[in-house]
Amino acid sequence: MLKNDLLLRAAHYQETERIPVWLMRQAGRILPEYRVVRSSVKDFKELVRNPDLVCEVTMQPVEILEVDAAIIFSDILVLPEAMGLNYEMIESQGPLFPTTIQTIADIAKLSTDVEQKLGYVSKSIQYVKAELADRIPLIGFAGAPWTILAYMIEGHGSKTFSKAKKFLYTQPQAAHKLLDKITTATIRYLEAQIHAGVDIIQIFDSWAGMLSESQYKSFALPYMKRITDEIQEVPIILFAKGAHYILESFAQTRASVIGLDWTMNPTHARSLTPGKALQGNLDPCLLYADREIIKHETEAMLSAFGPKGYIANLGHGVYPDTPYQNVQYFIEVIKNFRF
Amino acid sequence: MLKNDLLLRAAHYQETERIPVWLMRQAGRILPEYRVVRSSVKDFKELVRNPDLVCEVTMQPVEILEVDAAIIFSDILVLPEAMGLNYEMIESQGPLFPTTIQTIADIAKLSTDVEQKLGYVSKSIQYVKAELADRIPLIGFAGAPWTILAYMIEGHGSKTFSKAKKFLYTQPQAAHKLLDKITTATIRYLEAQIHAGVDIIQIFDSWAGMLSESQYKSFALPYMKRITDEIQEVPIILFAKGAHYILESFAQTRASVIGLDWTMNPTHARSLTPGKALQGNLDPCLLYADREIIKHETEAMLSAFGPKGYIANLGHGVYPDTPYQNVQYFIEVIKNFRF
Repeated sequence: MLKNDLLLRAAHYQETERIPVWLMRQAGRILPEYRVVRSSVKDFKELVRNPDLVCEVTMQPVEILEVDAAIIFSDILVLPEAMGLNYEMIESQGPLFPTTIQTIADIAKLSTDVEQKLGYVSKSIQYVKAELADRIPLIGFAGAPWTILAYMIEGHGSKTFSKAKKFLYTQPQAAHKLLDKITTATIRYLEAQIHAGVDIIQIFDSWAGMLSESQYKSFALPYMKRITDEIQEVPIILFAKGAHYILESFAQTRASVIGLDWTMNPTHARSLTPGKALQGNLDPCLLYADREIIKHETEAMLSAFGPKGYIANLGHGVYPDTPYQNVQYFIEVIKNFRF
Repeated sequence: MLKNDLLLRAAHYQETERIPVWLMRQAGRILPEYRVVRSSVKDFKELVRNPDLVCEVTMQPVEILEVDAAIIFSDILVLPEAMGLNYEMIESQGPLFPTTIQTIADIAKLSTDVEQKLGYVSKSIQYVKAELADRIPLIGFAGAPWTILAYMIEGHGSKTFSKAKKFLYTQPQAAHKLLDKITTATIRYLEAQIHAGVDIIQIFDSWAGMLSESQYKSFALPYMKRITDEIQEVPIILFAKGAHYILESFAQTRASVIGLDWTMNPTHARSLTPGKALQGNLDPCLLYADREIIKHETEAMLSAFGPKGYIANLGHGVYPDTPYQNVQYFIEVIKNFRF
């Protein structure tokens, strides 16, 4: 039994004494303590693969920010790597895949047998669970199949992901084969995370907004649905950034929670997703503002979402140059708020 | 009187024999003929400032693609430059402002007296109008005040425009002062374009989607509204990429046409904007696909928007590596379509 299970109860649409809160990218560059750990290793991947250090940086926001959930420190690209497609993390530029997927033959070479290669994630989860000692829940995560495919085809971040989208339009059968394989690997990876101890899972569809509604419904939604159908041991949060058109479809899946980016109107989102808990969605840039504005906008958001079935968060990962004192204040406002 | 005024009639929500079509960025790198002209000058800015060359590249898609409207070849950043903030166009990277706006004093230095400095645009318009000889309408354009502010503060493109958004949250009064000044300059610039001969105007809010609904309504919409209130000689198209939440508000302005990006569902957009003509919104990546798919998706789009008050286009500028034969085919499908 968790001492603070507010987040899980909110995810299950149960009553809570107050609104739970965590932040996407809460473990990371906003904390000076993280930057110390990060500078002690040669690169990002060395950090991600070291369970002691992962445990340390995962726990930092728990101790410093007093959030209502920890999220295991990792990256969505460890999965394609475990499938056989190596990536590099280029400082201040982002990820780069030296080799990309181009053909059916490339897809055939990928493995879905990822648990062992991702053993360092399971080990990190066990370390964090021991450290948390049932204080708060631990969130596991993976990238959504479309977003993982987008990196595998494009090879790096992009303003348009036009290569990846071109692949969907010109090689739809190969795309479905690849998405299917990614989904299988993702489910195995998530099961391993659950086995290691995570209490809830978030699926990040970071590049959802690149797709049109019909493309999302063909190439992304069926695989999100398969994940929510097959993973039933813990609640699942679906977060598809930019895909404003998909909320009603997500409400038809078995997902417990739907994450919202900052462009979504809370009241409108509620009307589209009856019975589902919602998560989000303050504009990350609001945390640059004065306390008065942070308080006003945060309280307006809480009021709009209402007291039940709601997890407070930003509408995107916290930006690295955000003053962490403002993050602390955001959390304080939420914890003190009563309906 | 224009020989082909389909686009203007569609903008005015009048009956047309067939759907008119043009493409955002139709004059540009998709055409080999453009690349020849571009390589004859040392940089992009030299091209933009040369009315003979602007006329040539503006006319290229008219002759080669047989679109139903020309759009004057230029850049939205010529306006901030005329206001006193110089920009550079860095090859394959995009625009860069060596100096950015930081303070009220910086804003005070900006000029709204832009007509003379932008005389080369008016001259280009006159050349194009002469060349068009009343065959089809000529579209003029400007960036939306928020998008221009975003570049002036941020200094370059950005995945988040967090500096520009931070400015809105931390210096709202300065932001409004700057937006007001940009709007005044924009209206003067657009009046000059109209005086020189453009038949219709599009306002590009390229970074609209960075803002939340409440931020857009505070810092962007009032200035869009002022432009549509003050410019009444020609119809206006408002295109706010990513701002899915703003369609109902745009429908309340005096704008004639609302442009849609490819994430908007046509039927849903129609229901939110009664009485307004709509423009868009094929996913630009569809033009990488086979003809069969292009035809199927284009015809589905035309059917969804319906026969009246509609201008066919992409939901974003055509991507530079699109085969222009596919653009020609897209146009052919639209011209041959009958309800």
